[in-house]
Amino acid sequence: MSTATAERPSFRTILIAGCGLIGCSIAAALKARRFPGRIVGCGRPGANLDAALAGGHVDAIETDLSRAAAASDLIVACTPVDRIAETVRTAASACRDRTLITDVGSTKGAICRAVFSELPSQVTFIGSHPIAGSEKQGCGHADSELFVDRVCVVTPFFTTPRDAIDRLSAFWRGLGAVVVEMTPEEHDRALAQTSHVPHVVAAALAAALAAENRAFAGSGFHDTTRVASGDPGLWTSILMSNAAELAAGLGAFSERLSAFQRALEARDEAALRRLLAEAKANREAAGRPAGSDGGAGGE
Amino acid sequence: MSTATAERPSFRTILIAGCGLIGCSIAAALKARRFPGRIVGCGRPGANLDAALAGGHVDAIETDLSRAAAASDLIVACTPVDRIAETVRTAASACRDRTLITDVGSTKGAICRAVFSELPSQVTFIGSHPIAGSEKQGCGHADSELFVDRVCVVTPFFTTPRDAIDRLSAFWRGLGAVVVEMTPEEHDRALAQTSHVPHVVAAALAAALAAENRAFAGSGFHDTTRVASGDPGLWTSILMSNAAELAAGLGAFSERLSAFQRALEARDEAALRRLLAEAKANREAAGRPAGSDGGAGGE
Repeated sequence: MSTATAERPSFRTILIAGCGLIGCSIAAALKARRFPGRIVGCGRPGANLDAALAGGHVDAIETDLSRAAAASDLIVACTPVDRIAETVRTAASACRDRTLITDVGSTKGAICRAVFSELPSQVTFIGSHPIAGSEKQGCGHADSELFVDRVCVVTPFFTTPRDAIDRLSAFWRGLGAVVVEMTPEEHDRALAQTSHVPHVVAAALAAALAAENRAFAGSGFHDTTRVASGDPGLWTSILMSNAAELAAGLGAFSERLSAFQRALEARDEAALRRLLAEAKANREAAGRPAGSDGGAGGE
Repeated sequence: MSTATAERPSFRTILIAGCGLIGCSIAAALKARRFPGRIVGCGRPGANLDAALAGGHVDAIETDLSRAAAASDLIVACTPVDRIAETVRTAASACRDRTLITDVGSTKGAICRAVFSELPSQVTFIGSHPIAGSEKQGCGHADSELFVDRVCVVTPFFTTPRDAIDRLSAFWRGLGAVVVEMTPEEHDRALAQTSHVPHVVAAALAAALAAENRAFAGSGFHDTTRVASGDPGLWTSILMSNAAELAAGLGAFSERLSAFQRALEARDEAALRRLLAEAKANREAAGRPAGSDGGAGGE
């Protein structure tokens, strides 16, 4: 377990804006690593906010984002993808000079573009996407080890000061993550292929299952379609915010699928075997993500 | 644990022709349920055959299929899909009157058609497909509970005596399976949708992953593509033997996928949310297969 955060308390007060699974897992990870500063949870009144305090993940809760933001050095926007830009704008307009703002959204281009032009000059925003999720939702499933050995992408603007990027990267490394720096567009292209295309494909497979064939769905079907059990509202926001890259990714997938279809239609056994062997090798080259028993959430 | 087999020993000597994961799991399941007769394992000399005997799954091993078949009341062909018809023919030409032969192949039409016209009149063959698998292979991973609460499809010919169907169904029920009777063609259409289409789709997804994006593959990607790690040779045989139904199933899948693509291209958020909600509901209506932690094998 890394203690980077404890050794170098770069931030005194950290605001978690949005106390769902990811927000509370960040707070829990900080507490587990003995973060010496103050952690405040902000959100709408309700079960998640109460659980964040009752679970000891945060030191205080707050329902007024502007007031909470004004007292924070780091603000992590953990609201759903379609509300992140608004969360960042509200926090940015209220916070002090040198406050660093980040988010945990599964797409980055739309958020970064929406935020970039409107940010007050004294505030720094850098997008983040910790690629870690679970089909579970809510603060009750917070996991202090959720980010360990998982990739966290950070997407600075070309104008972002290096010092701020380094402080944010150190924050994520302190929670155990492996930090990768990319542009928002590079991120969205990669995630279209690794997450958004598979989600749509899994959903189409699940939708295509005829009622009379349900009894014959084995573990292969269930694994292949598992992400399709993710929350439709959450995933609609994610997919819509990356629609262009997703459409391009679906096109590339369809071309691959056509190669299999051509081999089958030609009854070309050697070609089919080669395609299956390539797929197996490519999948195995991707390795296995750490602690991966989840994923139907918005990882 | 059912004891149907022990209560009604319909067969005195059972031959397992092919001692891989499924064959040895059948033998192990019989032993665990105190089958009072004799179990013989047949196959090529090697590790699987040795393990079948050493593991106590079978009472004897034999490398000559004709000789083993001549002494058996039930013969279960557990060889790979592309060798089942030959296994059945060899066994049928050597066995006694009233011997019942079945198999465990993942497709049924090609096997049943190949066998039907050539079977000696005194021998009864009924196709079986226990929908249970594992990404593990070989006798060393034999599991006596592999068939518990799993569907086993039996595919009699229209001329098959009812008595023989009932004896075979009782055999599978004795191992814990839920028996469903279908025509070979109905079976292949259903399995194209629940297993073969998902396999090809998962392989196409795995193949489409660019090397530079591997680091961003999370648990969702890994689950969605898990079956693509199955043995290419095994799966080539399965897919080729159901190529027509598979091609039709891929067409139906592509139509579903097009509905998602249209919603995305039109940026129609309501349509996308509805499609995702339908997919989630349809997947959840299919329930969860028992003991499903496997499946990249030829289930």
